Amino acid sequence: MGRVTERRRVIRIRDGAVSTRPDTLVAEEPLEIRLGGKPLAITMRTPGDDFALAAGFLVSEGVLGSAAELANIVYCAGATDDGSNTYNVVDVQLAPGVAVPDITLERNVYTTSSCGLCGKASLDAVRTTARFALKDDDAMTVEPATLSVLPDRLRAAQRVFDRTGGLHAAGLFTVDGELLDLREDVGRHNAVDKIIGRALQQDRLPLSDTVLMVSGRASFELAQKAVMAGIPVLAAVSAPSSLAVDLAAETGLTLVGFLRGSSMNVYAGEHRIALDSLG
Amino acid sequence: MGRVTERRRVIRIRDGAVSTRPDTLVAEEPLEIRLGGKPLAITMRTPGDDFALAAGFLVSEGVLGSAAELANIVYCAGATDDGSNTYNVVDVQLAPGVAVPDITLERNVYTTSSCGLCGKASLDAVRTTARFALKDDDAMTVEPATLSVLPDRLRAAQRVFDRTGGLHAAGLFTVDGELLDLREDVGRHNAVDKIIGRALQQDRLPLSDTVLMVSGRASFELAQKAVMAGIPVLAAVSAPSSLAVDLAAETGLTLVGFLRGSSMNVYAGEHRIALDSLG
Repeated sequence: MGRVTERRRVIRIRDGAVSTRPDTLVAEEPLEIRLGGKPLAITMRTPGDDFALAAGFLVSEGVLGSAAELANIVYCAGATDDGSNTYNVVDVQLAPGVAVPDITLERNVYTTSSCGLCGKASLDAVRTTARFALKDDDAMTVEPATLSVLPDRLRAAQRVFDRTGGLHAAGLFTVDGELLDLREDVGRHNAVDKIIGRALQQDRLPLSDTVLMVSGRASFELAQKAVMAGIPVLAAVSAPSSLAVDLAAETGLTLVGFLRGSSMNVYAGEHRIALDSLG
Repeated sequence: MGRVTERRRVIRIRDGAVSTRPDTLVAEEPLEIRLGGKPLAITMRTPGDDFALAAGFLVSEGVLGSAAELANIVYCAGATDDGSNTYNVVDVQLAPGVAVPDITLERNVYTTSSCGLCGKASLDAVRTTARFALKDDDAMTVEPATLSVLPDRLRAAQRVFDRTGGLHAAGLFTVDGELLDLREDVGRHNAVDKIIGRALQQDRLPLSDTVLMVSGRASFELAQKAVMAGIPVLAAVSAPSSLAVDLAAETGLTLVGFLRGSSMNVYAGEHRIALDSLG
């Protein structure tokens, strides 16, 4: 599965000089996720960790919550005319007795857009389906000084970034700032699904007492995925959206944005940020 | 429709000092796009230019190609339990005689993931459905010096960026670097759809002799949208993906990445870049 990057010829223009050379690009290919043989969603992703991506996607959608509920994931051959295996189609089999969600047209529309329902209803939907309620009174706290080092640690751990400049990253950390897992992908939501899926495969859900750090911005979708996996703290390098903040406030998720050096903004769930450690 | 930004309370930590203040966030809300009353897709978007977004999405999907094919777009009331209009659901009516695409489950999956089909088939699908073939022998060229100024012009024209730091931008330029249109959105693909949709509403498709400039990276999806609107040159601040480069090479799209100052990489369609102007 060494397809995280691909080489292409590129014409470089630098200060008026033109040269031709090979360039390393981040690989992007579609992954179709099937559930019990039925197409459920397609995502544009960087190949690799595809089973984890599929499992994590199903956690985000409320289908899976523990390793025991997952029977098997396989690559599907025969998805192309010539019958070859593109390794771009995976089929997930649930364990006996696990309810297969009703895959209606509308559900598919909602699913693949990574959006719940419209407006207020979306927040209710997440809270209803979340298996691992984030408790406002949990004892977990994280110090601002610990959060401050996460962006550098995430960056340092990114193996591919320096070569392509085209990958988003998500890192899972302990409250002490120890890196538990790192995934990179052309899509930030995929990187998060891969982390959550690996945790499911290792039966480590809910991911209590962890901090999820993402490059870039914090969308509604990413906040939703954190909540569904029981991750209590989501931190982002850039800005959150209004709906991400609303969801965090509704579900008890701690949401940190603009995490840069010793500066950060806490948008929700500030009881988990050890502000007294600053004094 | 003044919902491009929203205000939320935020706890700021700066160099050990904690303060509480209002913060401006980019608004993110779901938009459901219906076609002839039937749900087609949901996208998480920044409210505003919703009709253009819907129209542009349908151009990208090959449903619309000219203003005459579009009968009407309206906001749907009654999408919530209390019957109020959330302005988050739009219905598109095609003109009489325009074929309504067969909305099968699979088509929906493909549509909302903004991906064509798997692997090689996706490139064929785009080329087949593209109404406005990009010609390799068109006379349109753009000078590197002109491309060099586009990022700054795009940034300068962004009205919201400086307030929230959370918006992607797409700008449509002439080959002389004149800004024709600028859209911002929490999703880059939405910003591009809004530009293309406005052009359709003004019956300016195909967008020959234009350059589409996007903040951030160039994905397959963005390259596909440019091709579908007949835009011959796509330029991005950051890296393209492998599939974006492949699609550009297959369809004749000129793809420029890492456009920063006088530096840039040309990944495909270099015949439209006036390299001789550098000498």
